[in-house]
Amino acid sequence: MPELRKDPIIGRWVIISTERGKRPTDFGVIEEKKKGGFCPFCPGNEDKTPPEVLAFRPNGGGSDSDGWVVRVVPNKYPALQIEGDLGRQGVGMYDKMNGVGAHEVVIETPDHELDLGDLSVADITSVLYAIRERVLDLKKDERFKYILVFKNHGQSAGASLEHTHCQIIAVPSVPKRVMEELSGGSNYYKYKERCVFCDIVTQELRDLERLVIQNDHYISIEPFAPRFPFETWILPIEHNSSFEKISTEDLYPLADILKGTLLRINRSLANPPYNLIIHTAPCQDGEYPYYHWHIEIMPKLTKVAGFEWGSGFYINPTPPESAAKFMRELKLEENAEAKIK
Amino acid sequence: MPELRKDPIIGRWVIISTERGKRPTDFGVIEEKKKGGFCPFCPGNEDKTPPEVLAFRPNGGGSDSDGWVVRVVPNKYPALQIEGDLGRQGVGMYDKMNGVGAHEVVIETPDHELDLGDLSVADITSVLYAIRERVLDLKKDERFKYILVFKNHGQSAGASLEHTHCQIIAVPSVPKRVMEELSGGSNYYKYKERCVFCDIVTQELRDLERLVIQNDHYISIEPFAPRFPFETWILPIEHNSSFEKISTEDLYPLADILKGTLLRINRSLANPPYNLIIHTAPCQDGEYPYYHWHIEIMPKLTKVAGFEWGSGFYINPTPPESAAKFMRELKLEENAEAKIK
Repeated sequence: MPELRKDPIIGRWVIISTERGKRPTDFGVIEEKKKGGFCPFCPGNEDKTPPEVLAFRPNGGGSDSDGWVVRVVPNKYPALQIEGDLGRQGVGMYDKMNGVGAHEVVIETPDHELDLGDLSVADITSVLYAIRERVLDLKKDERFKYILVFKNHGQSAGASLEHTHCQIIAVPSVPKRVMEELSGGSNYYKYKERCVFCDIVTQELRDLERLVIQNDHYISIEPFAPRFPFETWILPIEHNSSFEKISTEDLYPLADILKGTLLRINRSLANPPYNLIIHTAPCQDGEYPYYHWHIEIMPKLTKVAGFEWGSGFYINPTPPESAAKFMRELKLEENAEAKIK
Repeated sequence: MPELRKDPIIGRWVIISTERGKRPTDFGVIEEKKKGGFCPFCPGNEDKTPPEVLAFRPNGGGSDSDGWVVRVVPNKYPALQIEGDLGRQGVGMYDKMNGVGAHEVVIETPDHELDLGDLSVADITSVLYAIRERVLDLKKDERFKYILVFKNHGQSAGASLEHTHCQIIAVPSVPKRVMEELSGGSNYYKYKERCVFCDIVTQELRDLERLVIQNDHYISIEPFAPRFPFETWILPIEHNSSFEKISTEDLYPLADILKGTLLRINRSLANPPYNLIIHTAPCQDGEYPYYHWHIEIMPKLTKVAGFEWGSGFYINPTPPESAAKFMRELKLEENAEAKIK
């Protein structure tokens, strides 16, 4: 069973794999994965993953057969284990608990060659629908305090398999990064009696210089103080603290803006590695008037080094206004969607 | 002038280079630096750096001549600029200020082939002496609220020049990571009336299983909840909140434990890339009963990906007890120091 351990100074939890601990010789030179080769996420290899927990098969078919358009499976090498209780305990001055949680993989398409931004808006809508279903199901388990959806695209962003997929991890404590946003949002609300994210939406729709694209329900912006060049956020225009409470009608415009944003990032930067995360409210709570779910996309173009690790300051060589202008003015090929699909 | 911009949600500052903003084409494929070639940090090339601010020349010699053993120069491409006032201002709902600060480089040895851990204890003492002198000088400037000393070793840890060096950045606001440690330390102190770092020293000297090495003044440990495999901290055994207040006699044992630690990391992991930071109290304040300066060394063996960025949780595949045991039991070659130097 992996262990969750708490740093006694700042309260950050880390997941320690106590069972198959890596020895120094296991690190060595990081191998570059070869393109091609066997892929457990491709159709026909359904028996190479744990049994699926959800799949959409427009033409029908049994569990773990092919013919799916989106498929969700437990991670074969999970960071956390689904069984067991939390077992909170002290170890001298320190605190730890069992590494209980869920770790699932959403295979976004059967096509090994496509990326998420290449899919049609309808297909991305199905991916978002599947994610929402899994989050709604996982939050029934009251041991889980937070459910994080994220995507690592490209090897240097941490993707270990190239077939496009995202991941869902349910954890038994609200993560530090989310607590910081909740606490910052709460402070702002106490002072202004408004949601800081709603104010950001208003400000960006007024200034326009950091706006990338928008539709009736969402905006895609470069944030005012981005950590990374071309860091891009997608926010719902209407206040809503939880991603999983999104209505089915609102999934299509979300897929639309996500596709438009990913295509612009891919074309601007020649298909860069990136991390994407969905930040939403803790799953066991009600509505937060001061928190607003959103997506953060972070292309990996710069290195995080000693200064950033030591300070939490980031050095960003690209002003967000320049990145937004570049992405806004980018000419996407006509019918980018139709041509690719 | 670079700009400091504040994230309105969590209050994190970022440094935005507004002048020579990178365009998308400036990123492209990250070039691997070639070994060899011209090095501005090598003796004889003193005119290729800005004029030095400090150097030790045991046999004498003028400024910016060769014959030095340690040399400190302003960074030729500083992240912040030394001249100007803070110019704090609001921009709509956002906050920014001028990117005022200092950015210096400490060239640790004239020998291009050596790393910091390869130097003799006496030479590392000179490096630490030079760092202390520079921090003491920079803190006279009351615009600076914090001075961070850090080292990027190896290209994938962010080093842009291979000649061994560390960096000093003085910033006009206390960084978020340090604020978190101060706040965590303060909470612990209110509850326990003891310094959390002092308690960690006591606990580790009792448990011994995470201890790497120790001498009369310092311990080198794997922390209980490390973010990274082989993450190693060096702490003074006696309470002291500020690195720069270290006495001259205490520099030699610090150099000794730093060398022993770096050699063990280098030998355990085949000279891995790493980041090293010195965390110390904010420079304009007095003593903190609840803060204890320390060094954090983070080998770069795993990738920080979406889960870490989104949650602030880290997944560490190596239990600190295993890493400490491996490093403790490592047989260093006889007279490692004498052979190299």
